[in-house]
Amino acid sequence: MRETWVVGAATNRFGKMAETGREAASKVALAAIESAGMEPKDIEQTFVSNAFGVAERQAHLGPLINTALGIPEAPSCTIESACSSSSASLHEAYVHVAGGFSDAVLVVGVEKLSHLDTLAATSYFAMGADYAFETRNGATFPGLYATLASAYQKRFGTPPEEFGAVAVKNHANAAMNPHAHFQKPISMATYLASPVIASPLRLYDCCPFSDGASAVVVASRERYPSPPSEPLVIRASTRSGSVADLHDRATLTGLPATRTAAAKAYRQAGVEPGQIDFAEVHDCFTVAEVMALEDLGFFSPGTAGAATVEGVTAHDGRFPVNPSGGLKAKGHPISATGAAQVVEIFEQFNGRAGGRQVPKTGLALAHNVGATGGSCSVHIFGRR
Amino acid sequence: MRETWVVGAATNRFGKMAETGREAASKVALAAIESAGMEPKDIEQTFVSNAFGVAERQAHLGPLINTALGIPEAPSCTIESACSSSSASLHEAYVHVAGGFSDAVLVVGVEKLSHLDTLAATSYFAMGADYAFETRNGATFPGLYATLASAYQKRFGTPPEEFGAVAVKNHANAAMNPHAHFQKPISMATYLASPVIASPLRLYDCCPFSDGASAVVVASRERYPSPPSEPLVIRASTRSGSVADLHDRATLTGLPATRTAAAKAYRQAGVEPGQIDFAEVHDCFTVAEVMALEDLGFFSPGTAGAATVEGVTAHDGRFPVNPSGGLKAKGHPISATGAAQVVEIFEQFNGRAGGRQVPKTGLALAHNVGATGGSCSVHIFGRR
Repeated sequence: MRETWVVGAATNRFGKMAETGREAASKVALAAIESAGMEPKDIEQTFVSNAFGVAERQAHLGPLINTALGIPEAPSCTIESACSSSSASLHEAYVHVAGGFSDAVLVVGVEKLSHLDTLAATSYFAMGADYAFETRNGATFPGLYATLASAYQKRFGTPPEEFGAVAVKNHANAAMNPHAHFQKPISMATYLASPVIASPLRLYDCCPFSDGASAVVVASRERYPSPPSEPLVIRASTRSGSVADLHDRATLTGLPATRTAAAKAYRQAGVEPGQIDFAEVHDCFTVAEVMALEDLGFFSPGTAGAATVEGVTAHDGRFPVNPSGGLKAKGHPISATGAAQVVEIFEQFNGRAGGRQVPKTGLALAHNVGATGGSCSVHIFGRR
Repeated sequence: MRETWVVGAATNRFGKMAETGREAASKVALAAIESAGMEPKDIEQTFVSNAFGVAERQAHLGPLINTALGIPEAPSCTIESACSSSSASLHEAYVHVAGGFSDAVLVVGVEKLSHLDTLAATSYFAMGADYAFETRNGATFPGLYATLASAYQKRFGTPPEEFGAVAVKNHANAAMNPHAHFQKPISMATYLASPVIASPLRLYDCCPFSDGASAVVVASRERYPSPPSEPLVIRASTRSGSVADLHDRATLTGLPATRTAAAKAYRQAGVEPGQIDFAEVHDCFTVAEVMALEDLGFFSPGTAGAATVEGVTAHDGRFPVNPSGGLKAKGHPISATGAAQVVEIFEQFNGRAGGRQVPKTGLALAHNVGATGGSCSVHIFGRR
């Protein structure tokens, strides 16, 4: 396999976009290409993620983005894997470049649903779960993750402050991220006073509905040996699945797909969890970050919450997690999330993360989950 | 690149499915795997196409299909490229196997919209066009292809009988295909008497709204040297794009994306159009087949209709086109179509096409278009 790099990356400010998904995606795509020191004509293939583009009455988004970039002949397709859509696109980009099929591939993730009311938007999101056995019976993601949180608390006796510490940390990080949806810190008192959404999850356990767009450019070292920014060397690009339905799982205190994708990633990169310097993990709900840190092998089962309380995962802690603010506070525009995690790692590697800059940036991991873990992508990035 | 084969293929009967897309997709996937002499556990990666799964309130279909197959850990994602979705999935499967990332990959395409009324269904389909500049102004696919047909007729003076000959031929072929939506022949008189849908296109110029599911298994020769059926050697797997909007195109009498994808495919396979024995081409409307045959280099501009009248493209003609019955009469379940073209070629190569068997099966071409040609996939298959 050829050495494959992320050589450019861009995102917009997550939150509520006035423009269409198509416009936002085209803009961040161009910004990512420019950040790579390339011109659009260098792009040989485009992977778009836009899980719920039908909410804007637009499928088949790739040709529109490519046309806006002035490269209408470049092949494109749209890749969906629920909330892990753009990390799935990144994986395909990696396969194309590492396998020698292309030298420069564009990955764009975008989602816009803020023009819908909350019920309509949550109905779209819930399509990532199993309609026949979960959604049709009333389950949406807050309820499904509340089930996981209940099981986790029952097994480990987790106090609410441990979930709360994830929210407080991620809001603190997002307050230093100009692209974040929420840019103000919250206190533990604010967390504890927030209303219960789906017991035991409170308002501040949940990520927001966000619009947003992110893009990265993946290229071969062979063809692009001297990019203008320090590239991310893709040391591992792995994906895995699991039984989608919670009621059919052997465990509810972790996500099997995270474990299998992580095991493959550590094997591919030839590294141990202890060698990773920082991570962007999938914290759609606070419990998801806690479980991810354990499933990824960074903390033993039942201990990630306490470590968070102790500040281990703060942006200046021993093992920073979600310096971007995470889905929880940076925001979670479904198909933009996986690429946005990589944008953050790219900025961190280049020392451009401002107040949220982490101390060590030798090896980083990105972890992106589809729905309640029916799919999972894990990427490990290193330095050249 | 490793030699890469289609080793298994299956489809259901196109038309109106009582079951869900998920159920149909799982069944054809299993049938395709069994036809390859494999077990589900041999599958290392699944690519699903289901452009409008939201019409069934179900995104993130891969984990559900993989769970039904008993392989929940296998990675999956959903690939959309409008009507060329499952040929885009096939291309990714090819890249994974040829590049050495997997030895056996499942491609499943499925679409079900028959539970919606015609307006709702056509509104979904129209999302493949450009919402901002085409659909919002009232254009749907019959109108857009009617524009192409008008331009074609204006340039070449094409009589209606030339478009009609495509419909008559494809209905005749479909009448011999037990998986076809329509299984009765039509006469030229029936064609000419059918009502105008969008001038100059009549009812029998248009493909139907169909439900359906199709699947193929792609594998490496290295790992699967002796499949039970004669495999299709993937000699070329190419995709291309073009400006999506008709009003921005330099030509309306052909599809630029077909020409660029075809040029790449002939180069990759090292063959000329004249060496291809038969083809499955994208005939969503009769004019689309006529244009495809010219864009693909089989006939010179303005002559494919007359050749069809003369019987050249009949299943027992000199150059059979759409022996399956094509989208026009076999049916067009959006995301199942690209894979279904390959199912037909697989059956033809194995001499299992019954009354519609074509005489020569050394080299075949599959041509699948997204929308009005914003995307196009071309595959060329040969014998080992």
